[in-house]
Amino acid sequence: MTQMVRVHNFMVSSDGFGAGEGQSLETPFGHADPGVLFRWAFSTASWPNRTEPGGSRGLEDYLVRDFHRNIGAEIMGRNKFSPLRGPWADEEWKGWWGDEPPFHTPVFVMTHHERPSYSLSDTTFHFVDGSPSSVLEMALKAADGKDVRLGGGADTIRQFLDAGLVDTLHVAVGPDELGAGSRLWDSPDDLLDRYHRDVVPGSYGVVHHLFWRD
Amino acid sequence: MTQMVRVHNFMVSSDGFGAGEGQSLETPFGHADPGVLFRWAFSTASWPNRTEPGGSRGLEDYLVRDFHRNIGAEIMGRNKFSPLRGPWADEEWKGWWGDEPPFHTPVFVMTHHERPSYSLSDTTFHFVDGSPSSVLEMALKAADGKDVRLGGGADTIRQFLDAGLVDTLHVAVGPDELGAGSRLWDSPDDLLDRYHRDVVPGSYGVVHHLFWRD
Repeated sequence: MTQMVRVHNFMVSSDGFGAGEGQSLETPFGHADPGVLFRWAFSTASWPNRTEPGGSRGLEDYLVRDFHRNIGAEIMGRNKFSPLRGPWADEEWKGWWGDEPPFHTPVFVMTHHERPSYSLSDTTFHFVDGSPSSVLEMALKAADGKDVRLGGGADTIRQFLDAGLVDTLHVAVGPDELGAGSRLWDSPDDLLDRYHRDVVPGSYGVVHHLFWRD
Repeated sequence: MTQMVRVHNFMVSSDGFGAGEGQSLETPFGHADPGVLFRWAFSTASWPNRTEPGGSRGLEDYLVRDFHRNIGAEIMGRNKFSPLRGPWADEEWKGWWGDEPPFHTPVFVMTHHERPSYSLSDTTFHFVDGSPSSVLEMALKAADGKDVRLGGGADTIRQFLDAGLVDTLHVAVGPDELGAGSRLWDSPDDLLDRYHRDVVPGSYGVVHHLFWRD
């Protein structure tokens, strides 16, 4: 079984932005509201942070469940990991996710400013400076035969797409415009020269785009 | 996590039949052609019997993959297991699936004619005579915390639906009529008094119906 590089449950606005402008500690998605971007996922039975019983077990539950299936490592951009820019003032910042990050695998954070690896529960964060292909090589090795999830943000996914390194993508396109921010694409059709695609309507006006290549 | 009873990748004709008439050794689906009924599944990358690389990794691949996820046992009707009717003349018949059945769990075959259990590879077949609820009790115990897949045929699924024992169903409705055979329903709308539903178009004119209840 060949190892794959997969993008899952990545939300963009109708105009192609994965996050807005002005990211801060209080606003990880800048001026975009994650409660709106992700409400289709929050409404499913399998959403990991669900605290009450219930939730949809229809199509969108399949999409949410697939996030963890056969994943052995994640790659993310620095801006997914932290609102801080430039050299690390200290190593206090451990990510947005508290003591139990939802990854449960090695995570490779792409940054020009390296720092020591550390573990929180069953997730280990590594900080790596390199090209998409060199970081991918590390992640594939760490994944030990399983697939690698490319976690975003949009700039990071763009880099891997430009390098031809992504096998499948699930991108959920929301109904609202953001106007500015971190852009994945001008249009979901941009990838059709290289990928097959299924388009499936979801809840709250979201449309799910599922891409794969031969 | 509550154990669930799940129906997966169950094909019916546009008029609601899961198999045609005249089942025999050569025609497990009677006058229905399984090559047509299941071609949407055969075309996916995850179809277990795929021998060549390639195949779709879109929506229908999610559906095919889910067949094995967190399943600890299967329940099937006798007519899914065998074309033979009445008492077993001998115990030569071991199912349609050769030495490596695709179940990989205990399988409970519902029949009024019991016979000894046996194993083929990592699948063990048990032959049980009882009501849906009593057979389900055995299967839930054997599944050891995982879910139970209700494998069909249509008559068996009907019995479990009538007893209120099914939690989720994925039924793929094909474009063609069969006219006669083993019937699941008059219309996919029959279940809407008890289930939520997502309806998703698939390939080859198939429409996927995903049902769940609260």
